[in-house]
Amino acid sequence: MGFGISGVYCATVTPLNADLSPDLKRLGAHCHNLIADGCHGIALLGTTGEANSFSVTERKAILEGALNAGITPEQLAPGVGVAAIPDTVELTRHALSLGITRVVMLPPFYYKGVSDDGIFAAYARIIEAVADPRLKLILYHIPQTSAVPLSRPLVTRLIAAFPGTVVGLKDSSGDYGNMQGLVEDNPGFAVMVGADPLLLPFLKIGGAGCITATSNLAARALRTIYDHHADPARATEVDAAQGRIEAARSMLNSYGQIPTIKAVLAERDGDDGWSRLRPPLMPFAAEKLGELRERVAALPGV
Amino acid sequence: MGFGISGVYCATVTPLNADLSPDLKRLGAHCHNLIADGCHGIALLGTTGEANSFSVTERKAILEGALNAGITPEQLAPGVGVAAIPDTVELTRHALSLGITRVVMLPPFYYKGVSDDGIFAAYARIIEAVADPRLKLILYHIPQTSAVPLSRPLVTRLIAAFPGTVVGLKDSSGDYGNMQGLVEDNPGFAVMVGADPLLLPFLKIGGAGCITATSNLAARALRTIYDHHADPARATEVDAAQGRIEAARSMLNSYGQIPTIKAVLAERDGDDGWSRLRPPLMPFAAEKLGELRERVAALPGV
Repeated sequence: MGFGISGVYCATVTPLNADLSPDLKRLGAHCHNLIADGCHGIALLGTTGEANSFSVTERKAILEGALNAGITPEQLAPGVGVAAIPDTVELTRHALSLGITRVVMLPPFYYKGVSDDGIFAAYARIIEAVADPRLKLILYHIPQTSAVPLSRPLVTRLIAAFPGTVVGLKDSSGDYGNMQGLVEDNPGFAVMVGADPLLLPFLKIGGAGCITATSNLAARALRTIYDHHADPARATEVDAAQGRIEAARSMLNSYGQIPTIKAVLAERDGDDGWSRLRPPLMPFAAEKLGELRERVAALPGV
Repeated sequence: MGFGISGVYCATVTPLNADLSPDLKRLGAHCHNLIADGCHGIALLGTTGEANSFSVTERKAILEGALNAGITPEQLAPGVGVAAIPDTVELTRHALSLGITRVVMLPPFYYKGVSDDGIFAAYARIIEAVADPRLKLILYHIPQTSAVPLSRPLVTRLIAAFPGTVVGLKDSSGDYGNMQGLVEDNPGFAVMVGADPLLLPFLKIGGAGCITATSNLAARALRTIYDHHADPARATEVDAAQGRIEAARSMLNSYGQIPTIKAVLAERDGDDGWSRLRPPLMPFAAEKLGELRERVAALPGV
């Protein structure tokens, strides 16, 4: 039984021009680098991609930009969930119109403390409005940022109500027990982990893969783990990959994931343009760049 | 010295048609009722108005609907702050294009734990992009829902950077000490309280007025307090008004403000259409309607 989504997906950062508009050229090149580095796909317009700092029009342009750069619809799983249901419907239909069937969908995230019935009603309304049997919806559980958690009973209810449509969930909570519970509750349902260091143990208990920020910098290591985690003959290689992932993740968490990834890419490419973020996020602090360079140099190779 | 905004503003609920589109006819009538009941103005498209459940296009239609119904630009202070800066700029420019100069602006609210520098940069970017000297911006501090608080030092910094533009703040935190501090820090700056029962004490220490949900049901009482709080000869009347406000607010908080206001209006008008909400919010629970009727009947008159 195949998962609706599986493998190593990068929650790619979004490069910006000097006026903070999306830099589609730099983005296309980065997506190709990620695929070359081993990613199965690109989760454009996630939290790491500053998705909710872009308008609906800009989000459509970003998606079309990736396709125009030669990334295929099958390689893309864009974020489409915003605060207002009509916009989520519009973004989902737009993705489908481009042949992209897998989308990652936040619940409406302005109101807090909402009921499972209310979140169910929101997803139901969106799915019924999109009304496209090709849709493969990946729920997005990131309570530390959305502040709207998706409970396990709610997830099971959505799968039962929309079989073949609600096919997966990205769990960015970092709560391994929750991911394990989701896998146990819902056989065949694709749970994608957001915390890279958990990919290795999670694959062993039935996880489908990962959608991660660290893969902007460590895609090859994640791919090694995905491909070889069950092969005892490759244990040394897998351990080395896990070491690199843990070190990279720890570095990102020390400084803040999105500015740090962009700062590392700016250094790598000798391209200051990479450093820009949209407010309210801020660029990596210049006074810590020296320290960051040392940490990047010290990352274990794979 | 006059405040940039003052008096009793209603954070109006937004009535919906059967397909959950905004019901502009019912909204216009409700706005007129609110003005007739004593509101100085209408804060359309606030949290109570389910603003962030509407698309940019729908929000523009709601604003135009209120004007078409005969509410004047001077009577309106709509919410314009959304997660993406380009949309906030577009909504603000749209309001100004209609002659509406006072707007209430949330900070970008998807990312949490952002820095004061980041929030300052977001507001600065918006103000500079709007580039209209008529703009009177009311900051919106509602940490329990936005999860992006506006600190007192940040507010003072924004006032200093954009004098004559950043003229007020709606404080929905319920934290009286914070409101008091904002008034002390920033002479002439209009702090509008969101928690109705605090209007009476807050006016006495220099508050500018209120923008509240309860005013959908108790505008007259709030107006009595606003007009007569300093008149010892009207103390009995003011006390009665305060009693009604406290009882109404307590009733709303028992069940959830937005569905309860809509349920009470549905009863009052004999119009079930009022009961609708957009997911993830849900209508008032039918099994509690009897109990709600009793509480409404028991509200102290004014």
